[in-house]
Parts: sequence; C-alpha cells; structure tokens
Amino acid sequence: MSNKLIHTPEGVRDIYDGECMQKLKVQEKILKVLYLYGYQHIETPSFEFFDIFNKDRGSVSSNEMFKFFDRDNNTLVLRPDMTPAIARCVSKYFADEDMPLRLCYLERTFANNTSYQGRLKESTQTGAEMIGDDSSDADGEMIAMVIDCLKSAGLKDFQVELGQVEFYRGLVEEAGLDEECQETLQDLIENKNVFGVEELLETISIGPELKEVFLRLPEWNGSIEQIQKARAFTNNKRALFAIERLEKVHQIMEHYGLSEYISFDLGALSHYRYYTGIIFKAYTYGTGDYIVTGGRYDKLLWQFGKDAPAVGFAIVVDRLLMALSSQHIFLSVEKPDTLILFDISARVPAIQLAKKFREKGIPVPFQRKHKTPDVEAYLTMANRSGMRRVLHVFGDGKQVREYSVITGEQKLFRMEECL
Amino acid sequence: MSNKLIHTPEGVRDIYDGECMQKLKVQEKILKVLYLYGYQHIETPSFEFFDIFNKDRGSVSSNEMFKFFDRDNNTLVLRPDMTPAIARCVSKYFADEDMPLRLCYLERTFANNTSYQGRLKESTQTGAEMIGDDSSDADGEMIAMVIDCLKSAGLKDFQVELGQVEFYRGLVEEAGLDEECQETLQDLIENKNVFGVEELLETISIGPELKEVFLRLPEWNGSIEQIQKARAFTNNKRALFAIERLEKVHQIMEHYGLSEYISFDLGALSHYRYYTGIIFKAYTYGTGDYIVTGGRYDKLLWQFGKDAPAVGFAIVVDRLLMALSSQHIFLSVEKPDTLILFDISARVPAIQLAKKFREKGIPVPFQRKHKTPDVEAYLTMANRSGMRRVLHVFGDGKQVREYSVITGEQKLFRMEECL
Repeated sequence: MSNKLIHTPEGVRDIYDGECMQKLKVQEKILKVLYLYGYQHIETPSFEFFDIFNKDRGSVSSNEMFKFFDRDNNTLVLRPDMTPAIARCVSKYFADEDMPLRLCYLERTFANNTSYQGRLKESTQTGAEMIGDDSSDADGEMIAMVIDCLKSAGLKDFQVELGQVEFYRGLVEEAGLDEECQETLQDLIENKNVFGVEELLETISIGPELKEVFLRLPEWNGSIEQIQKARAFTNNKRALFAIERLEKVHQIMEHYGLSEYISFDLGALSHYRYYTGIIFKAYTYGTGDYIVTGGRYDKLLWQFGKDAPAVGFAIVVDRLLMALSSQHIFLSVEKPDTLILFDISARVPAIQLAKKFREKGIPVPFQRKHKTPDVEAYLTMANRSGMRRVLHVFGDGKQVREYSVITGEQKLFRMEECL
Repeated sequence: MSNKLIHTPEGVRDIYDGECMQKLKVQEKILKVLYLYGYQHIETPSFEFFDIFNKDRGSVSSNEMFKFFDRDNNTLVLRPDMTPAIARCVSKYFADEDMPLRLCYLERTFANNTSYQGRLKESTQTGAEMIGDDSSDADGEMIAMVIDCLKSAGLKDFQVELGQVEFYRGLVEEAGLDEECQETLQDLIENKNVFGVEELLETISIGPELKEVFLRLPEWNGSIEQIQKARAFTNNKRALFAIERLEKVHQIMEHYGLSEYISFDLGALSHYRYYTGIIFKAYTYGTGDYIVTGGRYDKLLWQFGKDAPAVGFAIVVDRLLMALSSQHIFLSVEKPDTLILFDISARVPAIQLAKKFREKGIPVPFQRKHKTPDVEAYLTMANRSGMRRVLHVFGDGKQVREYSVITGEQKLFRMEECL
C-alpha cells in the first residue's frame, strides 16, 4: 500500500478533536459579533471564473491561484480571496441598492503558493464587507468590529495597524514612477529597508523634497502624532488627504473607546491593488503573519458594473487559532461527559435513557456493549475522549451501573432514578 | 464590460438574504442533533490527492471530479464525497483506536457533472460516520440520527429507504456475472425496468431459480414483510444474511419508535462501490433526488491501512433546503429589527446606544446619516431589510427620534430612556 495514500497534499490539513472544537467556537464567537453589528451572512462558490480574480481586479497574482477547466473549457479558479467574489455578487443581486449593505461570511480561500513559504494552501476566513458608504465612520465600524471579533475569540494582546494607500500613491504619481520602479520601491518601504530605498532613489531623477519623503516614509509609524509629522514634508494633495482620513478614523476609534488597539504606519502598503483608501492588518504574538487584513476599495464594484464605495476585512481563522493556542488561550467548549453503554437485552430502556439526556440538551454517545471487550475497555474509550462516567444499562434494563472512568468506582441505580 | 464578469460558473451559486439564513439555521439544527448523539466535529481539506477517490476506493467515477495539479505535478481533486476523506483521516490519526469513533462534519463537496443533469457542482453536505462498530445497532443509530436531523430541520413527510447490497452481490456471485453484465443489470433493477431485466436475462445462461430472483427483485420493496418474501426464492447465504440484517435494523427502529419513517427495497443498489452492507437514501416531496444517502462500508478503511468496520451518511443540505422551501417550511431566524441612524455630531452617544443593544444580544446595524439622503431613504432601506424601526440619534445626541418604518409614525425619547 502506498504510504502517500493516508497523506494530505502539502499545505492543507485535517482538523479534529480539541482543535476542531476550538475552531468552531472561535468562528461562532466571531460570527456572533458580526451579526450583532447587523451584518447579513452570504455564501459564494468555492470556485469562480478566472476573470473575477485576474490582474485587473487587483487580487493575487495569477500563478498563486489553483486553476482548472470546466467542461466548456473556461478557466476556473479556487477563490484566493472573498472580496472580489462579494463585489461580483453584490453587483449582480443588489445592482439597484443605493443604501449601505452589510454582509459577512465564513468561507475557505485557496492560495497556490510554493511550499517553502510554509503558508497554508487552504485557509478559513471570516469577515465583513460594507458596501455603499464612503465615510470614515464606515472605516471606523470595520476596525471596531475587528477589535470586538478578536476580543470575543479571547485575544487580549493585539494591534491593528492602519495605513492609507493614497499617501504613497499620491507621491508616486507626483514622482512619475513607472510600475516596475514603483513596485520595487513599495517592497523596500514595506520591509523598512532604508538603505535600499536610498540606493533606488539615487537612480531616479526626482526632486530632493520628494526623495526625502520616500526616505522618511518608513519612519512615519506608531501613534497618530508620528503620522502627522509627514505633513511638514509634502504639499501633495492626495497624501495630505490620506493623513486627514487617518486622523478622522483615529478620532472615531477614540469615540468607540478602542484607540489603544490601533497604531498607524504610512509605510504599510498592500499588494492588493483594489484598495483605494485606508488599509489595515492586525497582529498578535504567536504567529509571524497578520491575522486580519482589510481596507477600503471604492473602485472594485465599478468593475462589475456597480458604482459603489466599499470597505471590508477578513480574519484568517487558522492563524488566529495558532496565535490563541501559542498564547494558551482556550475557549470553553461543551463535549460529552457521559457514555451510555447498553446490553442488547436492555436496548429499549437504554434508548429511553439516551433520549432523556438529549432532550435536556446533554450530548451523550450511545454504545452497544459487544461480547468481546469488557466494560473496562469502554471506560478507557470514554476516558480517552475526556468523558467522566459510563452508565451501563444491563440485563433487562431495570438497573443502571454508573462507573467513574477515573476512579473505576461503581454505583447502582434503578432506571426510574435516572429517567 | 463582459457580461460574464458578474456570473458564476454553471452549477454553482451565491446564497444570500433569507435563503442563506435558512441554510445556516438548518445546518445549525442538524449539527446540534449530531452533537447530542455524541459525534465530534472534524474537517478535512477541500482537495486531496486523486488516489484517495480513485476507482479502487469505490467513490464516483474519475470524469466526474474536478482535477488539477499541484506544483510537484501530483493530481489533486476537489473532494466529491466526504466518506473516503474521513476514512483516510481516521486511518492516519486514529490508527490504534480499537473502540468506536463517532465523527461528524459540515463541508462542501464537488461534482464535475455535465450541465444538462441540472445538478449542483458544489453542494454543502453534513453528515456523520461511526467507525469501529459492525453491529446492527450502529446501523440503527445512523438511521435514527437521519430521522432526527430531518425532523429538526422542520421536515415532516419523508421516508428513509433501506437496501442491503449483499443481497444483490450474493446473487451476482452465484450467477457468475461479469462486471459489464452486472452493471447493466444493476441499472435496470434500480430503474425497476422489469422488461429490460427479462430481456437481459434471456442472453445469460443461468438457472431458472436465479432468473426468477432477479426478475422479482424490483417487486421486493415496501414493508419488511415484502422483503421477507424473497426468502422463499433463494438459498443464497449472502442474500439471506442481508435480509436478516434488514430485519434486525427494522426491529431496532421499532425500539427507537421510528419505524414509520422507514421502508425497504431489495432493488435499491448503489454506485458507491465501497458499501458492503445496508445502504439507505431519504426522500421527500419537492426535490426529485434523494436528500440523504448513506450506508455501511466495512472494507474502505482497510484500504488506508486500518481494519475497521464503518457506517455513515451525508445530508445534501442544498436539496433539503429546496424541499423545505417548496413545502413552505421555514425555520424562524433572528434578524435585525432596529436600525440606529446617527448624525455625526451625535456619534459618541449613538455608539453607546448601539453598544447597549449588542450587549443585550440584540443585533443592530449602525449607520451614519449622510447629508444627501433624508431620513425617508433610510426608512426605505430598513424596510427592505425587514426592519421595523429606525432610531435616529440627532443633534447633540441627547434625544432619539424613533420612526416606524411601516407607518412612518415618530416618537421622541430622551437618550437616558433608551440606554
């Protein structure tokens, strides 16, 4: 037999036992927050036409997607990201809606990355999108939700880092940089590689003021005051507007009483080209990567035929779980405490007993006792699953023997006492 | 702009608004039943190595799967079915577990069928697998769970049809039919095409007793008594054992008090070759296709290196929803009733008000009032979303104006009264 047969492909995995229960609980808590903010659940297909995610849309690059063909030879992709899918869906089904729409989701996304990057090829993402409101209050609501979601999952130490793509884009436009140069510069700034930025700028003919702004960009991060320093170095309107927007969002977060969770970074950029305003990522200990990503995308829906501003975010559930686990934060989950074991001769009363438990909302596995293994074996089984006791319905089912799986202690009850 | 851009590929779809809420509610109800029976949730990847689902495993045929390659040129498939995936996972992570395991799931499955079949290419399935118990009580538990799940989703009129693959397989073995002939015969019997069966049997050299059994097979369905009639026509041991097993399961369903929901059909066969014992499908009005499929597969795990019997089922959530909708059965769902609209000048008290609602567990969308649309527009928006009232926090936020979205009636409150 091939050993490969029991393995999953690289970058995907099985989730079971306690980890699965934690995952479900975290998802439930997060969705509850999104519902409380009035967001409506939506589902889109796991795969779509390639065009929905191609370069013009500004999602991930083509070679990072899983592609295949349908029977009519159209190229399909496993969705790398929910935002363009929801933009498409809203443009189709809510074309005439001119008032704000609030949508949320819990879905799998797929990335055909190279295995050495060590990232998951299938992740669970849960998030929200608000379509039809271009205000800073919409931005603020998103960030407040991110914070409430992470808190509801049990996370305490985390930071939401805010940037604004318009600051950098305004300057790039002013400098007249070509796309290649712009992308190189973006990478250097994101990596806070000041020497690299300096070296690159030497090769470009732009004025000394602009050069200084690019050089200082990596410094402008931290508190809102740090960001405001950038004002003294540029008159670029798009750049100044970007700072103003961050100031507004900062004020709104103060109004929410949540400003302690946010920080700013003018050097935070994004490889998602569809973002047009604020962008943000949330970080915590225990995972090197961001656990939440989001931002404003006011032009994406237009590409699908609906002219509407939008802002949204996605929580990468798998990374959040990893962080929670390494911070030893576990939500309490309900799992079976009692196993009902029955002799075949006692099936009818045993079924009644199991029913009684379930009607009370108590989960209870119900197991016929086979001839070969003795009760001990079932105690071991129950113990391994974290159960505390076994109720053995034996003989004619008029009596029930309770076993403690830990001490092995036994007690005898009449069935009427149990029902 | 390409019109195609807003479309989803054939056979997949967006689910939103009320339909999505119904879907989530139905899933929640079903999972709750599975948890109450002591089943533990498990997740496996959306795609796996092709080998997990190839012909030897007995899942769907190769051309009905979506296939693609990973970066090492291995063939991957979008899982067509959860059972082999869970068999693989259990063989890997629970290799040494010799006591029964109870697992359940809620996942998407994929079928690359031709579009004229009109079936979904992506479906949601929720189901359960019990591994390590070969008893008729395990069979019975599965069927009891199917019935409880469907009832919890609100379904009243449905039937679970039980078959037993060993009856037919025993006869085919006795007749020495080759695979091609066997498959043709199977199709004819499943379609209850008695003339076709007769015609085919003319071309085969088998004894008259066997011929009669095959000819009568399509008749043996309905009550357990109908099935028992087959006994008089064969001495085949596998066939007789199959009937005996169905009798045991019937008795167990009587013990559960659920026998009214089941019927029998010796002519019910299955294209899933991994089944080795009872098989079943549940049907209701409003969808031509089965809404649940399941059965016993005692040899599948062995292929992955673990020798353990198993039985399980999958509920096709999409078909169940279609049936519920056409039977006008809708579960009650909680959705926002109130929209909080606020003037920017009243943001701080408005945030407090929204918080108050959410702390009480009441979902409430929170919307900044923009200059252009007047309050009327927000009332229309709230009405479209099925909300009953709008609370407008205006001016300095010391007062709140309540609007009924239906009558337009207004009331003025002091903020303290609302908090």
